[in-house]
Amino acid sequence: MSQGKFIVIEGLEGAGKSSAVAYVEAWLRGHGITCIDKTREPGGTPLAERMRALVKEVHEEPLTMQAELLLMYAARVQLVENRIKPALAAGHWVIGDRHDLSSLAYQGGGRGIPAALISQIKQAVLGDFAPDLTLYLDIDPAIGLARARQRGELDRIELEQLSFFERTRARYQQLAAADPRIFTVQAHLEPARVCAQVQQILEQQLCIPG
Amino acid sequence: MSQGKFIVIEGLEGAGKSSAVAYVEAWLRGHGITCIDKTREPGGTPLAERMRALVKEVHEEPLTMQAELLLMYAARVQLVENRIKPALAAGHWVIGDRHDLSSLAYQGGGRGIPAALISQIKQAVLGDFAPDLTLYLDIDPAIGLARARQRGELDRIELEQLSFFERTRARYQQLAAADPRIFTVQAHLEPARVCAQVQQILEQQLCIPG
Repeated sequence: MSQGKFIVIEGLEGAGKSSAVAYVEAWLRGHGITCIDKTREPGGTPLAERMRALVKEVHEEPLTMQAELLLMYAARVQLVENRIKPALAAGHWVIGDRHDLSSLAYQGGGRGIPAALISQIKQAVLGDFAPDLTLYLDIDPAIGLARARQRGELDRIELEQLSFFERTRARYQQLAAADPRIFTVQAHLEPARVCAQVQQILEQQLCIPG
Repeated sequence: MSQGKFIVIEGLEGAGKSSAVAYVEAWLRGHGITCIDKTREPGGTPLAERMRALVKEVHEEPLTMQAELLLMYAARVQLVENRIKPALAAGHWVIGDRHDLSSLAYQGGGRGIPAALISQIKQAVLGDFAPDLTLYLDIDPAIGLARARQRGELDRIELEQLSFFERTRARYQQLAAADPRIFTVQAHLEPARVCAQVQQILEQQLCIPG
């Protein structure tokens, strides 16, 4: 049995993260891996899902950007400690729909919270825990948001201005360029071509006997 | 009209914080102050009360001490930005049942989270905002917890071991000794003698025309 790894799919609303998660799962199963745990952030444990609701719902009371950041990390540490680490320890593979890169991009790039502060909180609560492989689905926010709108009602974060998502995308691109464990996928292309890119990255990066 | 101030009552479970809040309110009213906003932590706004529930309820899923700390600060920044600062700006007085000192004592002293990390988070989300006056009700946790138990069912934090509260009290005492804006009240005494101490501190520290 292969040692399990933590694979994360990142990107803006409407980038195609759910399809990519499904493709990664199918690819792993095609390589004989059956112990797969799929998670999402914020959320993925009962307590983290309650924190997700606080972040995603539209409230009468404004949620400060500081509270938003702290809730994201509170939810993340619950997910990492109570679900991802135990799954990896049991030899499972974990596929995450978003992880820490989202906070760096949305709260750091989008909201403008200093990257140094986010790094301090991250280091304090997660230490050196990090995904083995991240696929960043890059898309123009105008295209992504149009797709997301077709899916139905938008949540509190999805209701932000286009400029918020443009700043978020710019930070995503910058972070992806700087980290050799993050691979960028051109997500505006048709689904088959997106899958082909994901497949190529998985085959190059994950050494799984066929 | 006097400029409003932020007065905080701190202390372990069963120290008599509710009675002290009521006494401070009565004392202020006796000095002609009618615009008084009473808050509690964690909580005090609709979103902060939902974070309070996450912290206080007994859950099947363990709440990590990191998530507990982040939730405390998320709730605090909601309360400070959405309620305390607007009240003070309107000239109101605010009486808080707990504030930041609780995190330093419980999460710092009780849980053992490094004080430097808590300070970083505090500085990042609250800046230099601080109470004008803090009354710390000091009590032996064995006495305080016995009182709290008489009131009814204990919450998640109140169910901790006695040693947790002993560490929390030691940190409270240490912080109170180091900060000239924190005044210690001997809270194991009979109610009239506790009120007399509170009265004396208020009269010495708050210059309100009689």
